[in-house]
Order: sequence, then C-alpha cells, then structure tokens
Amino acid sequence: MSTPSRFKKDKEIIAEYESQVKEIRAQLVEQQKCLEQQTEMRVQLLQDLQDFFRKKAEIETEYSRNLEKLAERFMAKTRSTKDHQQYKKDQNLLSPVNCWYLLLNQVRRESKDHATLSDIYLNNVIMRFMQISEDSTRMFKKSKEIAFQLHEDLMKVLNELYTVMKTYHMYHAESISAESKLKEAEKQEEKQIGRSGDPVFHIRLEERHQRRSSVKKIEKMKEKRQAKYSENKLKSIKARNEYLLTLEATNASVFKYYIHDLSDLIDCCDLGYHASLNRALRTYLSAEYNLETSRHEGLDIIENAVDNLEPRSDKQRFMEMYPAAFCPPMKFEFQSHMGDEVCQVSAQQPVQAELMLRYQQLQSRLATLKIENEEVKKTTEATLQTIQDMVTIEDYDVSECFQHSRSTESVKSTVSETYLSKPSIAKRRANQQETEQFYFMKLREYLEGSNLITKLQAKHDLLQRTLGEGHKAEYMTTRTRDRLSPS
Amino acid sequence: MSTPSRFKKDKEIIAEYESQVKEIRAQLVEQQKCLEQQTEMRVQLLQDLQDFFRKKAEIETEYSRNLEKLAERFMAKTRSTKDHQQYKKDQNLLSPVNCWYLLLNQVRRESKDHATLSDIYLNNVIMRFMQISEDSTRMFKKSKEIAFQLHEDLMKVLNELYTVMKTYHMYHAESISAESKLKEAEKQEEKQIGRSGDPVFHIRLEERHQRRSSVKKIEKMKEKRQAKYSENKLKSIKARNEYLLTLEATNASVFKYYIHDLSDLIDCCDLGYHASLNRALRTYLSAEYNLETSRHEGLDIIENAVDNLEPRSDKQRFMEMYPAAFCPPMKFEFQSHMGDEVCQVSAQQPVQAELMLRYQQLQSRLATLKIENEEVKKTTEATLQTIQDMVTIEDYDVSECFQHSRSTESVKSTVSETYLSKPSIAKRRANQQETEQFYFMKLREYLEGSNLITKLQAKHDLLQRTLGEGHKAEYMTTRTRDRLSPS
Repeated sequence: MSTPSRFKKDKEIIAEYESQVKEIRAQLVEQQKCLEQQTEMRVQLLQDLQDFFRKKAEIETEYSRNLEKLAERFMAKTRSTKDHQQYKKDQNLLSPVNCWYLLLNQVRRESKDHATLSDIYLNNVIMRFMQISEDSTRMFKKSKEIAFQLHEDLMKVLNELYTVMKTYHMYHAESISAESKLKEAEKQEEKQIGRSGDPVFHIRLEERHQRRSSVKKIEKMKEKRQAKYSENKLKSIKARNEYLLTLEATNASVFKYYIHDLSDLIDCCDLGYHASLNRALRTYLSAEYNLETSRHEGLDIIENAVDNLEPRSDKQRFMEMYPAAFCPPMKFEFQSHMGDEVCQVSAQQPVQAELMLRYQQLQSRLATLKIENEEVKKTTEATLQTIQDMVTIEDYDVSECFQHSRSTESVKSTVSETYLSKPSIAKRRANQQETEQFYFMKLREYLEGSNLITKLQAKHDLLQRTLGEGHKAEYMTTRTRDRLSPS
Repeated sequence: MSTPSRFKKDKEIIAEYESQVKEIRAQLVEQQKCLEQQTEMRVQLLQDLQDFFRKKAEIETEYSRNLEKLAERFMAKTRSTKDHQQYKKDQNLLSPVNCWYLLLNQVRRESKDHATLSDIYLNNVIMRFMQISEDSTRMFKKSKEIAFQLHEDLMKVLNELYTVMKTYHMYHAESISAESKLKEAEKQEEKQIGRSGDPVFHIRLEERHQRRSSVKKIEKMKEKRQAKYSENKLKSIKARNEYLLTLEATNASVFKYYIHDLSDLIDCCDLGYHASLNRALRTYLSAEYNLETSRHEGLDIIENAVDNLEPRSDKQRFMEMYPAAFCPPMKFEFQSHMGDEVCQVSAQQPVQAELMLRYQQLQSRLATLKIENEEVKKTTEATLQTIQDMVTIEDYDVSECFQHSRSTESVKSTVSETYLSKPSIAKRRANQQETEQFYFMKLREYLEGSNLITKLQAKHDLLQRTLGEGHKAEYMTTRTRDRLSPS
C-alpha cells in the first residue's frame, strides 16, 4: 500500500463502515420483503387457481347437467315408442338406430365424465392448492425465523468488526502518541548534549552540576518513554492483528450469507412448493387425460357402429320384422276341372307341331329380349355405381377447423368457408338427383324387361321340359288319352 | 294325381283363386305400408338427430362461452398486475406462473374448439341430416312409383291366369258335354243294333225299313257327335295347355316379385341412405376426434410446463428480479489508521508464539466442530430427503374415477372414496409437518455450526497463510518494524 496523500480520519473511517453496514442492513430487510412478496404472490396464484377451478367445476357441472338432460330427453322419447320396445325385445337393432342409441350413450358418458371432472376439481385439485397455500405461508414463516437468526449472527459479526477496529485505532493512536513523546525526549537529549559541548569559559561549577543532573533526567524520561512506546506498539500490533483476523472472518461470514445462506433461505420458502404444485397440476392433467380416453373409447364404439351401417342386414331385419307382408305366397296350383286327370301340358299329335313352333318363337324372342335387357341392366348398374360413388365421397374430414395457430384469433374464420359451401353443395345435389332420375328410368325399363323375360322364360322352360321328355311324355299323354277317349 | 273323392265345383275353384289373389293384394298394400312406415321412421330419426345436434350445439356454445368468460376473467386480472407486465417484458416467467398462463390458454383453446364443434354441428352435420331426410322421402316416392308399376304387372299376370283358367273350364265342360252326347249316341246305336239282332219273325218289312233308316240316322248323329267331341277335346287340351303355361308364368312372376323385385324396391328406398348417414356421422366423429386431438395437444403443452416446474431456475430468476437485494456487498477493506503502513497480520517475535498457539487451538477446535456439524448436516439432508419423498409421492392418478362399466350407474360412487380420503390426508399432512419441524430445527443447528466454522476457518486460514509464509513474513514484519521503530 503506497502512502496516501492524506490519512483518513477516525470519524471518516467509522462513517464509511457505518454506511456499509447500513447498506447491508437495508439489503437484509429488502431480502425479507422480496421473500414475503414472493410468498404473497404464491398465495395469490394459489387463490387464483382455486377460484379458477371452482368456477371451472361449476361450468363442468352445468355442462354435465345439460348433456344429461339432452340424453334423457331423447332416451325418454325413444323409450316411449313401440318400435323401441320392439327393438329392445329383439336386441337386434337396425344399424342407424343402433348408431342413434350409441350417440345418446356417448352424451351420457360425456355427462358422467364431466361430472367426475368437476368432482375431482372440487374434492381433490382445489384441496391441494389450498394445502400448498398453507404450506407456502408456513414455510415462509420458518424461513423468516431462520433469516432472523442468520441476520442476528451477521450483525454480531459486524459489531465485532467495529469493536476490534476501534480498539486498533485506539492502540495505534496511543502507539503514535508514545512514539512522538519518545521522539521529543530524544530531541531534548540531543539539545542537552549539544549544549554541554559548547565552550564553557564562563560557566559556573554550580551550573555544570545542574546541567549534568538535567541530562540524567532526560535520559531517564527517554527510557521510560521507550518502554511506554514498546508496550503501546505491541498492543497496537495485537489490535491490528485482531482487526485483520476479524476482518477476514467478517468477509467470510458476509460471503457465506450472500452466497450460501440466502440460497438456503429461499430453498426453505420453496420447500415442497414446486413438487406439490406439480402433483396438483398432474391430478388435473390425469383427470383431463382420462376424460379424453373415456371420450375416445365412446367415440370408437360409435365409429364401429358407423362402420357397421349396412343396408343388406337392415333389409333382412326389416323383412323379418313384418313376416306377413314379405313372406312369399303359396304357389298357384293347377286346378283340374271336373275330374280332368291330365295336369301337364299335352304335346300329342294335333298340338305338338304348334307347341314346337311356339317353343321356337319363344326361344328366339327370349334371346333378343335378353340381349336388349342385358344392355339396360349394364347401364342401370353403371348409373347405380355413379350414385354410390357420389354418396360415399369422403367429405367428412373437418380437421382444418381445429388448427390452432400461435395467434389464437385465426381459428374462427376458416370453419364456415371450407366445408359445405352452399353453391358447391347445391350443384352436387342437383347433379346427384339428375343421375337418380336417369337411374330410376333405366331401372323401370330393366324391371319391365325382366318381368316379360320371366314370364316367357317360364313358358319356354315348361315347353322345353314337355317337348324334351320325348317318349315318356308321349307315353303319358297316350295313356291318358286312351283312358279318356272311348275308342 | 289320384282321383279326388269329389270334384271341386267351378265356383269353388274361382273362390279359392280369388281369395289367393286377395291375399296377395293385401300383402302388396301391406308392403307399401311397411316401406312408408320405414321411411317415416327414418324421417323421424333424422328429425331427432337434427333436434339432438341443434340442442347439443346450444350446449356446446354455452359451454364455450362460459369457458371463454372464465379465461377472460383471469386473463384480465393477470394483465392488470405489475408483475404480469414485468414478466411479459422479460418473456421469462417463473415456472408456476407459466403453468398458470398455459392453463388459461388451454381453457381458451377448449372454448374455441367447442365453439367450432357447435359450428360444425349447425352448419354441416344438421344440414346433412336434413338432406338425408329429403333424400329418404324422395327415394320412397320413386320406389312407390316403381312398386305401382310392378304391382300392376303382377295383377295383369293374375288376371290372365284367371282368364285362361276360365277358358279351360269352359272348353273342358264343353268337351265333357260333347263326350257324354257322343256316349249317348253310341248307347242308342248299340240299342238299335241289339234290336235288329232280335228274332224277327213278326217284323214287318215296313218296320224293317224304318229300323234301317233309324240305324243310319243314329250312325250319322254319332259321327257328328264324334267330330264335335274331337273338336271340343282339342280345344280343351289347348286351353289346358295355355292354363298350365300361364300358371307356370304366373308362379314365376310371383316368385320373381317376392324374391327379387321386393328386394329391389327396398333397395330403392335405401339408395344412399346408409352411405349418407355414414358420412354425416363421420363428420360428427371427425369433429369430436379433432376436438380431442386439439385438447390433447394443449394438455401436452401444460404437461411439458409441469415437467419444467423447477425450483432452481425459479430461484435464479427470483434473485435476478431483485438485483439490489441479492447482490453481495463490497468486501470490508482493511482501514489503516493514521498512516499505519502495515496491512497484514504481524507475526514477529513478541506475538509469534501466541499466534502459533492460537492457530493450533483453532485447528483442533475446527476439527471437532466440523465432525459435529457434518453429523448435523447428514441428519438434515436425510430429513430433507424424507420430505422430498413425501412431496413427490405419485398420488395424482385419477383414472379409476373414469372407469365405465357396462351398467352406467356405477361410476359416480367411486370418485370421492378412492382419492384424498380426509383421514389419510390429515395423517399424511401431520406426519409431513412433524418432519418439517425436525428438519428446520436441524437446519438451524447446522447453519449455526457452519457460521461458526466459517468465521474460525477464515481466521485459521489467514493465520496459516501468515505463519506459513515463513521468512518472507519474517522479512516483511522486520522491514516494517525497522521503519516504524526509531532505533
């Protein structure tokens, strides 16, 4: 350390020390304020979370009730219908009705799940936040108690520093004063010695004696001051050593407080906070994820039922439901007249040729009709396929509507635009109905043709059987003729 | 066919035929009624679906609005706080505050998604059901037109059967009558021949002549009747053949109608119904699944934030937020007194032994203190670990509450029982607070000990440095003493 231009006065040093300590004190107070504020913010956040979940629980309960009412309204309606009882009895529902019931079931499921959600909010999540709030307050108090002790310790250390510094100042001042007194004594001695060396022509003996005793006195004083100085010097060194050691200890304590203890104090406030908050929020997440899983399961059941929307089996069920209407009637039997014992086509001589001609005409007419009708059938089937393609177009994906951009505002607008825009739908429907019109025209044409073919084919086949049975038929008709004819 | 005990009379046959046709007519009417009823049920179902989704859209809208209000209420509250502005500016939120904001974001997201759901119900799903309803009605009409034609065709066939049957009856009756007339003539002829074969002793010539002309007359009549019979017999055979052919054609037509055409008629009614219903329900499913996906994404964001609930980084942020309070102060510097140029511990002869003794005492005291405090530290840390284990217990899984058994009634009861049952919670909390109490006691003990150690250690280290510096220190202290001391 180079020599300062001017020494700091004691008062200056004390003032500097005191301002430094005052600053630390202010910081300690400020730290407590910060921790208190943090705790207040936590308590406020936890209060907000409780309010939030209490209000959300209300919303979920209301939503649940509305869904339950909705399901109940339609359940009651379907329960009252005869069809429902019919269906329930059979446990064999038409596939669209099955979908409808599952849709109502899903709403009930959603209703139950949202009620459960509300229940978990109220009886679990909110309770947790309450407890975390209590805990935070308690932890802050504990932390405050510890902080109080730490601050006291720190102040003790600083006071000690003050004391040893003052002691050093005092002993050092005394040492300086002793040194200056010693130096003064040495100066006097030098002066005395100088005077004794002067030419002494006019000095009296008495005067000489007086001077010698004065020198002796000065020497004695010098020795005394030397001793005093040495003693003070040692005291001053010890005091400075103590000051230096205490200074080191103080700085170490202050450092320890700011670097380690403060962190420990904050940790005390934090004890369990993040972990408990984590568990509370995970309870919320668990509830939400489970609601989602349940919802998903329900939707999968509906999707499965939608996959099973099937006209073929429904047609079967429909016809089975009304057996009297759809059961084919008895065949029309041949009613023999007045004991006419012949009940088959006669192809004996007088009519054989005519039947054969008729058979051949039927055969050729049928060939033509079948070719014609096959054409109509192909057109009908192709048109039906076109309609099937139209009605099975996969136009039901609405995922675009649920895109969330970072700016949450841009969701709404896309919904109405992208799907089912009115003009395109109208055009599509007009096109579909036109195709339907054509299909039904062709279907009628085909049915007309096939009805005629059925009739002619039946006659043709009977004639073929009759004429083809050869001599057996010949024998039959001969035998019956023999019996009936008198000759 | 064995000979019947008695022939059916014509009227009986006609009555039987008519009753059979009446039955078929009644079935045709019944079939139309069934199809009409089916269509009505479909229209009703589609109306129910529309009403259902309209009502559900209302519920979703209300739910969405409530969620939006909820989010807005807390958003507004946080926006107004100073802290919020502080945080927003920094974009460096404390982890619990981050969770809170994401929770509010999630509610807004849910609000938007449920609004979208409602929008899709109203502008897409319901529209589809309306169109399917229109289509069903139109298809039924088309099917009815075709049914009308098919029924007419069938009636034509049945009428034809009636006609040919009557014709057969007529010709067969005529044939029988001709046959009996022929037989009568044959009988007369036999009688005449028998009479001519009698002994003719008393027969006059005139009588003889008369008899011969009579035989001739009978023969002529017989021939005529034979011809008539043959003619009628042929007509009867032809009529019976026609009857049999028409019977075959009729049965084929009836069979075709019941087995094929009826199915086609039902298909006409069904045209597009299942496919369109499928698409409508898939639109609903797409909306629901997408809502779910969006919800899930939102929850994942929150879960990520919950994973990042971290005391360490929050402590860092907290201290950075208040630098004035937490910044370590300047070191206390050695303040030399009145130009005292020594600023280090002096270890020259008069104090050296004492310092050495002090150093050794410090050393041994520190060793003891450290051992003691290490024990306290271990206990403190173990207790802290116990608390950490308590506060990180994984007690947040609520999946049990969302189990749906087939009987939907059994869900509700489980909720309140399984989780957070009051006595167990109270016990757990009491236990936790007891552990906390012990922890803080030990922590204070540890801090007290470590503060003392810090102070002593600082002094010890300084002495060690001073004494250890050997002759350099010796030289330093000697030099300064030389300067200060006068001799």
